[in-house]
Amino acid sequence: MASKKFNNVYIKDNVSIVGPLEKEGLLDNYDFAIDDYYYGEKTFEQAEIKMQRVVIDNLLNFNKLDEKKIDLLLGGDLINQISVSGYNASSFKIPFLGVYSACASYVEGLLIASSFISGKCAKRVIVTTSSHNLNAERQFRYPVEYGAIKKGTSTFTTTGAVATLLTNEETNIKVEAGTIGKVIEMGVKDANNMGAVMAPAAADTLYTHLTDMKRNINYYDLVLTGDLGEVGKNIFIDYLNQVYDINLKKYMDGGCEIYAKNQDTYAGASGPVAMPLVLFDKVLSTKKYKKILVIATGSLQSVQLANQKLGIPGIAHAISLEVLK
Amino acid sequence: MASKKFNNVYIKDNVSIVGPLEKEGLLDNYDFAIDDYYYGEKTFEQAEIKMQRVVIDNLLNFNKLDEKKIDLLLGGDLINQISVSGYNASSFKIPFLGVYSACASYVEGLLIASSFISGKCAKRVIVTTSSHNLNAERQFRYPVEYGAIKKGTSTFTTTGAVATLLTNEETNIKVEAGTIGKVIEMGVKDANNMGAVMAPAAADTLYTHLTDMKRNINYYDLVLTGDLGEVGKNIFIDYLNQVYDINLKKYMDGGCEIYAKNQDTYAGASGPVAMPLVLFDKVLSTKKYKKILVIATGSLQSVQLANQKLGIPGIAHAISLEVLK
Repeated sequence: MASKKFNNVYIKDNVSIVGPLEKEGLLDNYDFAIDDYYYGEKTFEQAEIKMQRVVIDNLLNFNKLDEKKIDLLLGGDLINQISVSGYNASSFKIPFLGVYSACASYVEGLLIASSFISGKCAKRVIVTTSSHNLNAERQFRYPVEYGAIKKGTSTFTTTGAVATLLTNEETNIKVEAGTIGKVIEMGVKDANNMGAVMAPAAADTLYTHLTDMKRNINYYDLVLTGDLGEVGKNIFIDYLNQVYDINLKKYMDGGCEIYAKNQDTYAGASGPVAMPLVLFDKVLSTKKYKKILVIATGSLQSVQLANQKLGIPGIAHAISLEVLK
Repeated sequence: MASKKFNNVYIKDNVSIVGPLEKEGLLDNYDFAIDDYYYGEKTFEQAEIKMQRVVIDNLLNFNKLDEKKIDLLLGGDLINQISVSGYNASSFKIPFLGVYSACASYVEGLLIASSFISGKCAKRVIVTTSSHNLNAERQFRYPVEYGAIKKGTSTFTTTGAVATLLTNEETNIKVEAGTIGKVIEMGVKDANNMGAVMAPAAADTLYTHLTDMKRNINYYDLVLTGDLGEVGKNIFIDYLNQVYDINLKKYMDGGCEIYAKNQDTYAGASGPVAMPLVLFDKVLSTKKYKKILVIATGSLQSVQLANQKLGIPGIAHAISLEVLK
């Protein structure tokens, strides 16, 4: 079975940092913001590494935790060989596992962390992820200086980083259950339409979660996907309705909650940091929602395979959160 | 604590495939071999995907298991965004988690699989990895057709794939314990000397494992590292001796057991598939060793960060196996 209930897994704290455009956009409740994409470093990649390091450093400091008290660090990012997360991990004396599900890497990290804590293989785990617009553009498409034209279905990679502390000690946010997604490839070959790649995977994971857990969609006060964006969100809603006969009512997509309309970011936000930023900024901070199903989505392409015109596989991982008080 | 004992985790079976040079070399006990690097596909990347698919298909068939009986597939490889493993996973209706610790990705997969099974989050898990010499050369260095000169410290990426079935039902190979490694960066900037990058990480993980488990090095009948190669192996032996006062006696490195001396592969074999090929071909098949400590090593560079002259971080993950009969 793809879904599991977890025992004694809680979110203790989260620290976030955002980029200049994200600071000007719709987000309000982040911890730090950078005004310049270099963040005092020589390269954008090194700026992204620094963002990851700063959120983890502050997470440890805020919680008065020595790194020796952390059993495991899970990290992933979009840069080839997740080398931002790998390099950042060398700053900490914490056992490290690199994870990759593209923009679903953060929830992959939460699922592994939760399984370790639930199965008593760990007590305190940090999950981190990051993305940086200029790194992603240069690596997957073109350096932004080239001024390449964008399609309307393109999403805009979010700049930022998060680090989340999970623990076996009770807090007000319980990680109640999770569903590991299957990889679904439906013949979409357009790397500029990741919403279309990921929407069927998100629908499959939602359906699997509800079936495995014997729940109705109304069980949840909110379904938060991310990062489908404006295009993928509508495909997801239609696909769920037509293929699975599920009507989403209380629904938000992280990709649509970061940039204002006038910021000209095409179909909205993407990148592994987009959804977790919205989760902590707009969902958990409000205390409006008690039962939340988070479905993170990832588009598993590389430049190599996209150039070979293979269909792009999508994946989605889900985690069920309960706000206790 | 970085190390954990596992409950009821066993290796049920493994299927392997090797490339043309590996077939001519020192290996004897693999399941399949390919005679041509394209393996009937249009590109080398698609050949690598096919190798992964074939070992999983055969693992399921040999064990008369429907894919629905598998709770989780863990996969990782060297290609950007682990896109070989991601694409391959779209052929199977099995929940998928992508992992990345460079050439330690296979043991990262075993550690997560073992934690899931031990913590009763899964019953049957498949761990897969692959590498393909021509894919790795083209992506990290130069297409081999360019005839670029190699340094003697360079290793040769192994072509092949493995898929291993782990289960909670007793077999003759028990996964007894494991240690998740820390990322260690000691200033080595030469991407053609990965043995030097990884040796300190391997030593740290071995020392941590013995300390956590309160064991002496003589507890084990064999320490198998991989893929340090001829250069890294000697650094590892010296470093262990001088820094940790540990003298290795019953020791083998996977990187030194795949190619014959006359095959001109510089410092030996590397790639995430190298060590598991040797583990099943030369260690578990002989039944000579009862207690085996496997330490997989990874060099966490990308072309981006290597070009920026950052020090290359290394990582090593360990798993303790017991052959029961």
